[in-house]
Amino acid sequence: MSGESLFLGPMPLSMKPYKGTRDFYPRDKKFLRFLAEKFSNILNLYGYLEYDGPMLESFDLYAAKTGQEIVETQLYHFEDRGGRKVAIRPEMTPTLARMVSAKIDELPKPIRWFSFPNLWRYERPQRGRLREHWQLNVDLLGGVNPQSEIEILSVAAELLKSLKALPFVELRVNSRAFVNFVFEKQLSLDAKQALVLEKLIDAKAKMSEVEYLGKLADLKLTDTVVEKVELYSRMGLEEALKVFACPEIEALSSVIQQINSQYGANLAVFDPTIMRGLDYYTGMVFEAFDKSPDNPRAMFGGGRYDNLVGLFHEKKQLSGVGFGMGDVVLSQFLETHGLMPDLGQDLDVYVAYQSDDFQSSAQKISIQLREKHFLSVVVSQEAQKIKSAFKSANRLDSTSVILLSEDEFSRNCFVWKNLSSGEQIELPIEGFLAQSSFKSALEKLKKS
Amino acid sequence: MSGESLFLGPMPLSMKPYKGTRDFYPRDKKFLRFLAEKFSNILNLYGYLEYDGPMLESFDLYAAKTGQEIVETQLYHFEDRGGRKVAIRPEMTPTLARMVSAKIDELPKPIRWFSFPNLWRYERPQRGRLREHWQLNVDLLGGVNPQSEIEILSVAAELLKSLKALPFVELRVNSRAFVNFVFEKQLSLDAKQALVLEKLIDAKAKMSEVEYLGKLADLKLTDTVVEKVELYSRMGLEEALKVFACPEIEALSSVIQQINSQYGANLAVFDPTIMRGLDYYTGMVFEAFDKSPDNPRAMFGGGRYDNLVGLFHEKKQLSGVGFGMGDVVLSQFLETHGLMPDLGQDLDVYVAYQSDDFQSSAQKISIQLREKHFLSVVVSQEAQKIKSAFKSANRLDSTSVILLSEDEFSRNCFVWKNLSSGEQIELPIEGFLAQSSFKSALEKLKKS
Repeated sequence: MSGESLFLGPMPLSMKPYKGTRDFYPRDKKFLRFLAEKFSNILNLYGYLEYDGPMLESFDLYAAKTGQEIVETQLYHFEDRGGRKVAIRPEMTPTLARMVSAKIDELPKPIRWFSFPNLWRYERPQRGRLREHWQLNVDLLGGVNPQSEIEILSVAAELLKSLKALPFVELRVNSRAFVNFVFEKQLSLDAKQALVLEKLIDAKAKMSEVEYLGKLADLKLTDTVVEKVELYSRMGLEEALKVFACPEIEALSSVIQQINSQYGANLAVFDPTIMRGLDYYTGMVFEAFDKSPDNPRAMFGGGRYDNLVGLFHEKKQLSGVGFGMGDVVLSQFLETHGLMPDLGQDLDVYVAYQSDDFQSSAQKISIQLREKHFLSVVVSQEAQKIKSAFKSANRLDSTSVILLSEDEFSRNCFVWKNLSSGEQIELPIEGFLAQSSFKSALEKLKKS
Repeated sequence: MSGESLFLGPMPLSMKPYKGTRDFYPRDKKFLRFLAEKFSNILNLYGYLEYDGPMLESFDLYAAKTGQEIVETQLYHFEDRGGRKVAIRPEMTPTLARMVSAKIDELPKPIRWFSFPNLWRYERPQRGRLREHWQLNVDLLGGVNPQSEIEILSVAAELLKSLKALPFVELRVNSRAFVNFVFEKQLSLDAKQALVLEKLIDAKAKMSEVEYLGKLADLKLTDTVVEKVELYSRMGLEEALKVFACPEIEALSSVIQQINSQYGANLAVFDPTIMRGLDYYTGMVFEAFDKSPDNPRAMFGGGRYDNLVGLFHEKKQLSGVGFGMGDVVLSQFLETHGLMPDLGQDLDVYVAYQSDDFQSSAQKISIQLREKHFLSVVVSQEAQKIKSAFKSANRLDSTSVILLSEDEFSRNCFVWKNLSSGEQIELPIEGFLAQSSFKSALEKLKKS
C-alpha cells in the first residue's frame, strides 16, 4: 500500500443516509403507508380533500410568513442555477396559503384540505426531532366559529381513535382571544406586554422556576399583576368562567363541552398556559398531550389563525382552524404505549418446484392466484429442494408455500401449505380454483 | 404614492409554484394517488415491496454514479449549514444502491423493490419535462437471467394493462450484450469505437439524416462496416437470429417469445437501435413506445445493469433488472388516448338543515353514516334554504344531499336525495339505518 492512497485516495462513500434523515426499508415504508391510509380514510369521512405542493418554494414565501428563528437557523435554502433564491419547505402552511390564494374565488368555502408532506429543518438530530419528517396537515378554512373548532378537534380525536390512542391522550385547550382579554382588559397590560407575557408562559415548561421568575421580574409588572398572572395560570374552567364571564371563555367552554360529550368526559381539558406559538394564532389553540407522566410532551397541536391569504390579497380575508401532526413524535408515542400496528406479512404465497420441468406449471398457478384472488405471489427462479423452499418462504416472510414436487406432479397435483397453521392440502394443477378445499384454505390464509 | 415605493417596496409574492413544478390541487393529487395505488396493487401481486429514502443525499453519491451531464448541468446541490455538500435526488438508483449495500448480507435475494419518489432536475420546462416529477422505480436484484428479464417485462405489461393502455403500447427490446457481440466480434470494432457507435445510434432519432451521416463519417469506419451497421440497424429478429446465431440474440428471442405468448403477439418487438443510455446497462434493454405515430416518444424504459453495489463493496456483486416510469409522460399518454380514469366525486353526502334547531340531529345522522357505512359526509355549518343547500352540494361535488326541513322535521324525518338519479326518499331520524329504503338507496349511491 502506498502512503499516498491513505491521504489522497477518494473517501469511501457512506452507506448511511444524510444526517438527521431516515431510509425507509420496506417495513418502515409500510408503517408510513399505514399512517397515511389511516389519516386519509378518516379525513375522507369528513370531506377533507388531499393536496400537495412542490418540495421547493421561493425563499421569499418563508421570509414573509415563517418565524424568524426558523428562517435564520433552520431553513434549507440556496440559489438555483438561474439565480432564483429557493428553499426546501420547512412547513406546509405557506404553500397552503399560496395555493388557496391563487384560487381564492373559485374554491367553495369552507375549504377542507389535508396533506401529508415531508418537511425539512436543519436541526441537531435528537429524540423526536429529525431533519426530514412527515407531517399531517389538516385545515378548515373560511368556516364558522365554533363549529369549525369543534370539527377540527373531532377530527383530531377520530385520528387518535383510529390508532387506538384516545385513552392515552388529553387535548389541552385554550383561547388566544381569551388570553388577550384577560391580559389587556383585566390586567391592563398593553398589547406588547401581553405578547411578551404570553411568550414567557409558553416557554415556561422548558425553564427552571428561578429562570421563569427572573424573566417575569424583567417585565416590571406590579406585584398585584404578577399575583394575578400566577392565579390565572392555575385556573380551572369553572373558575375562569366565574371570574371572567366573557364571551371568549364561554365559547371555549362550549367547545370543550361538546367534544367531551362526544368522546368522554376528560378528553378536552382547559389549560390557560397553552399558547401554541405566537405569530399565527388568534382564537382557540390546543395541544395533544400524552397523559403518561413519563412522556410530558406535546404530541401535536394547532388552532385558529386569521387571514391566511393576507400576504397575497390586500382586500381578502380567510380565517382558518388547523393542526399539524408529525410522524416521528407519533411513532414514538405509539411505541411507548404498545400501539404499533400489526403490518401483516410481506407475501401470501411462495411457489417452489423441484424440477425445471415444473416451472411453467408454477407460473400458471401463480398467474391464476394473482388474477383471481389478488394474492401476492413470488415464484422461485430456480428448482429447489423442499427444505430450501421453506427457508426461502420464511426469509420472504410468506404466509404460505406451494410446492410442485416429483411425487405430486406425477399425479398432476401440487401441495399448498399454510405456514402459520401448518395445514396443507393437495390440489390438482388444472382447475384448482374451483375446489372447495382450495376455497376454505384461501379463507384461512386471508384471516391469518 | 411616493416614488420610493415603486422601486424599493417589496415585490409582491408570486402565487405560482416554483418554475417547472406543479401544485397538486385535490383533483391533481387524487390522480397521483390513483397512479400510486395502481402501481402498488400490481407490484404487491408480484411480491415487490415499497421502499423510500430521504430527499437529500450526499453530493458524492451522484458525482460517483450519475451521468456527467446530469451532475454538471441538472443536479440541484448546495452546502448545508454544517458545510456538507448535499444534493436533491435526481434519480432513485443511487439511493437504492446505497440502501441495498448497507444491508447486502441480510436482505433475501432476489430483492424485489419499488418506489414512487419525486425527483428533481434543473431543466428548461417543456412538454414532458418538468423540474419535479414523480417516477415509479421497479427493480429485481440478484435474480436469474432470463427469468428476471421476463418478470420485469411482465410487470411493465401488467401496469400498462391495469391502466387499459396495453393495446396502445409496444415494448421495443434489445440486448446490449448482443450489440457488443455484433460490434466487437463481427464488425471488429474496439470497445471504445463500439461505445461511440452505440451512443450515436441511441441519439439518431433526435438528429437529421445529414447530421447522423456526418457523425458516422467522423468515426472513420470502412465503407463495409458502415454498410453493415446500416443493415444491422434495420434487422428484424428472424434475420438477426439467422445472421448472428449467438447465445445473446437467442436469449433475447426467447424473452420476446415468452412475453408475446402471454400478452399477445406484438407487445414485445426486437429493435436493434434501442440502446437505453450508456453507463448502466449490460444486458437486455427496453423502451415502451406509444404505437401512435403522432406520439413517437419513449414513455419509459429500463434494462439489466451489472453490479449495483460496486461503489460500496469491493468484493460483492449484485446485478439487477429494472425500469423507471415518470408521471408526466404517462399522464400525457393517458390523456392522448382518452384513458384518464374517472376519479369519482369528492363527497358522498352533503347534510343541510333549515333551522339551527335541527343542527344536532344533522350531526347525529352524519356520525352514523360515517361510522356504519364509511360515507364521506360534510355537514353545513349554518342553517340553509333548500336552494342554497343544493348549490353547496354541487359546489362540493357531492353525490347526494340530506335535507332537514321544517316539514319533515315536524314528523321526525329527513329527506335523502341522490343527485345523479334524482331519486329521493324520506327516512326517520331515529333508526334510519335499519330501513330497507335506506339500504337500497345506499346501494345505488355506491354504484353512482
